[in-house]
Amino acid sequence: MLEEMKKRVFDQNVALVKYGLVVLTWGNVSARDEKSGLIVIKPSGVPYDSMSADDMVVVDIDGTIVEGKYRPSSDLPTHLYLYRQYPNIGGVVHTHSTYATAYAQSGREIVAFGTTHADAFYGNIPCTRALSESEINESYEHNTGKVIAETVSDSDAIPAILVKNHGVFTWGKSPEKAVENAVTLEEVAKMAFLTELLNGNTPRVDQHLLDKHYFRKHGKNAYYGQN
Amino acid sequence: MLEEMKKRVFDQNVALVKYGLVVLTWGNVSARDEKSGLIVIKPSGVPYDSMSADDMVVVDIDGTIVEGKYRPSSDLPTHLYLYRQYPNIGGVVHTHSTYATAYAQSGREIVAFGTTHADAFYGNIPCTRALSESEINESYEHNTGKVIAETVSDSDAIPAILVKNHGVFTWGKSPEKAVENAVTLEEVAKMAFLTELLNGNTPRVDQHLLDKHYFRKHGKNAYYGQN
Amino acid sequence: MLEEMKKRVFDQNVALVKYGLVVLTWGNVSARDEKSGLIVIKPSGVPYDSMSADDMVVVDIDGTIVEGKYRPSSDLPTHLYLYRQYPNIGGVVHTHSTYATAYAQSGREIVAFGTTHADAFYGNIPCTRALSESEINESYEHNTGKVIAETVSDSDAIPAILVKNHGVFTWGKSPEKAVENAVTLEEVAKMAFLTELLNGNTPRVDQHLLDKHYFRKHGKNAYYGQN
Amino acid sequence: MLEEMKKRVFDQNVALVKYGLVVLTWGNVSARDEKSGLIVIKPSGVPYDSMSADDMVVVDIDGTIVEGKYRPSSDLPTHLYLYRQYPNIGGVVHTHSTYATAYAQSGREIVAFGTTHADAFYGNIPCTRALSESEINESYEHNTGKVIAETVSDSDAIPAILVKNHGVFTWGKSPEKAVENAVTLEEVAKMAFLTELLNGNTPRVDQHLLDKHYFRKHGKNAYYGQN
Repeated sequence: MLEEMKKRVFDQNVALVKYGLVVLTWGNVSARDEKSGLIVIKPSGVPYDSMSADDMVVVDIDGTIVEGKYRPSSDLPTHLYLYRQYPNIGGVVHTHSTYATAYAQSGREIVAFGTTHADAFYGNIPCTRALSESEINESYEHNTGKVIAETVSDSDAIPAILVKNHGVFTWGKSPEKAVENAVTLEEVAKMAFLTELLNGNTPRVDQHLLDKHYFRKHGKNAYYGQN
Repeated sequence: MLEEMKKRVFDQNVALVKYGLVVLTWGNVSARDEKSGLIVIKPSGVPYDSMSADDMVVVDIDGTIVEGKYRPSSDLPTHLYLYRQYPNIGGVVHTHSTYATAYAQSGREIVAFGTTHADAFYGNIPCTRALSESEINESYEHNTGKVIAETVSDSDAIPAILVKNHGVFTWGKSPEKAVENAVTLEEVAKMAFLTELLNGNTPRVDQHLLDKHYFRKHGKNAYYGQN
Repeated sequence: MLEEMKKRVFDQNVALVKYGLVVLTWGNVSARDEKSGLIVIKPSGVPYDSMSADDMVVVDIDGTIVEGKYRPSSDLPTHLYLYRQYPNIGGVVHTHSTYATAYAQSGREIVAFGTTHADAFYGNIPCTRALSESEINESYEHNTGKVIAETVSDSDAIPAILVKNHGVFTWGKSPEKAVENAVTLEEVAKMAFLTELLNGNTPRVDQHLLDKHYFRKHGKNAYYGQN
Repeated sequence: MLEEMKKRVFDQNVALVKYGLVVLTWGNVSARDEKSGLIVIKPSGVPYDSMSADDMVVVDIDGTIVEGKYRPSSDLPTHLYLYRQYPNIGGVVHTHSTYATAYAQSGREIVAFGTTHADAFYGNIPCTRALSESEINESYEHNTGKVIAETVSDSDAIPAILVKNHGVFTWGKSPEKAVENAVTLEEVAKMAFLTELLNGNTPRVDQHLLDKHYFRKHGKNAYYGQN
């Protein structure tokens, strides 16, 4: 079932490696099938070079396995939380990409310093609060989703988050768009890092420039790309 | 029409990816055909791996499409401004290359610290002023060209600019030379970044050494390369 | 003899290059054959691109060559010390990977700042003390093993070490796992470096989060990966 | 003539690109033929991807072209100075490799912080003084050689130099060894940079450890590698 979607999810998991966002097996991509509402996700801890589209796992919105010979990614409950919370998204990505994770480890947001950021994200990328001891010990992955949803209310404007001391999640209308956001987030994190080292007092980009670039690419007046 | 030039512009757009200057579709190369004065430019937001030479767009100096099935790059008005302002250039490049963009985000020029810089650029690489709110809201891309031309008067001596909070533009007598300047700019930006971290008080290279290297490669007494 | 193990050790030596952990010939992988107790190790100073599985050297636990036309890696006595000291390991890796070696050169431990670290290592990665002049002049490689064993008592919890002013050793139940730990160590070192540059006062990850991630992947209650 | 040597010099020029030490055409390798004393060097400014072994230029020790259809590298007089000054070397390399050049731009030596450095270099890598205005204007490339020889007297112990505000030269008994030293120099420069950022007061490696590693690989008591 959902063979085409399994192929797309597989391809996007492989794309994470191609883009240098994933070391070993530290990442996962899932997608929601719009018609059935089922979720397709990478299996847990299977090496990328022995994985095929057939190995993707299909689950329902409660995490019950509908098809698949493997266990789903252990981060599945986080993905499910985000799909429930953000009804118009179709793909979720988790990585430990290097620069963005350094921001997550230092507990700092990524400030919007320029148009590379504004082309994809309508504001700073926040970092979640730390989970409490009981949130960690009981339903850790579910509570990771909860703390993300607590931090990002407008999932269209800010399709990315830093999870404190952990890594990043990004999302989008499709798994391809979620991966694109993960690529942009890492590049924007690296640029922000370098910018802060060059000048520790660099201010946030002007709001009109942020508006201009974001709305050049998003919304009804967008004029970037093809029709 | 201009089939050879479309091939060259396509190849140089692909070269930006090969040189690591472009992530996703964040860059564009254009060229001016000397004979006709027409401009050939990359289409807007088309992924590099599905793009071909045939997809390049041909426009006149006012931006009217002469040939092409796609919309031109949304940065076209900046390219056109530069072609009008700098009559002896034949190629323009726009990228968000990482280190140079970090300089643009921090609003600082790239100081000429050594001969790698001097081999290509006769002086520091300046950063434009910020555009005003009205310049952003009315003809943003055109005004980006205006602010570049305001900052760089001698386009032969300094064929590169940092656009504040945005990215970089480079140019040259041909699209190939403009790409070469984009490669050099990013490498020079990375070296300057590392130099400043090693010693925050590093002075600019001596003027005689800058002169020696620049004029070893440029002008009537150049002796680098073949005849 | 031990043809399959020689193939595995060769493959893992090549993997060090593929993962970017080794420049020129600066690294080596060995494995212990569980049944015979013999050690298979890379030959000393043979370029990776002219090396084959047949060139691996087989030695006993005292370092006497049992089979092989080449001298074993000059770091062999360190490997042997670790195999004697840590009875349940099956593979050892030595590299001068860039970020981890920078920590070793600065004499500082790598603090556990996040879950990327906690997924593999149950605590900070310590740095050994410096060897004394006599430890260096007499049995240098053997004493390198000694100072590692002095510093890491629980080789399961912390399968990696920084050797002061030198480089890193990692180990694991197999040569494949030892290489995986070397990959993780370098990535964790890079993330720690960036984290410290972003915020010099970043605290260690909370103990419950460290526990959660470490025990999600290790021990009898692990639920990451497949059964 | 010297067909085999031209092939080796060509291969080592290509190796500079493979090792990431050269951007565009910013580097060159030469070799001295022991029997004839002739020098084989890369032509000036020829792109690496259209260059072949046949394009190498053969000159005598005074720089007179003996064979070749192209101009030799404009850095030839520096190479010749070094061959005259250091009679037992057989290869010279010039690059603008990123981290080492950042040290050269900041005018600082690369301190020997660990064994990666000590395996190749018996002490810190010094940086030359700046050339005077007249040294630059008269015989610039020749005087670059002079200032190198002024700074490095023992070319066996320290086969590498930082040329102030410019880049690096390395050498060795063969062009292959000179390239290996260029690879090591860049890696050692990157590690030193990271080490200094981690701890600005990191001391030089202990002299006994420097001795141990250097003499493990060099001189009559060396025991690294094969016989």
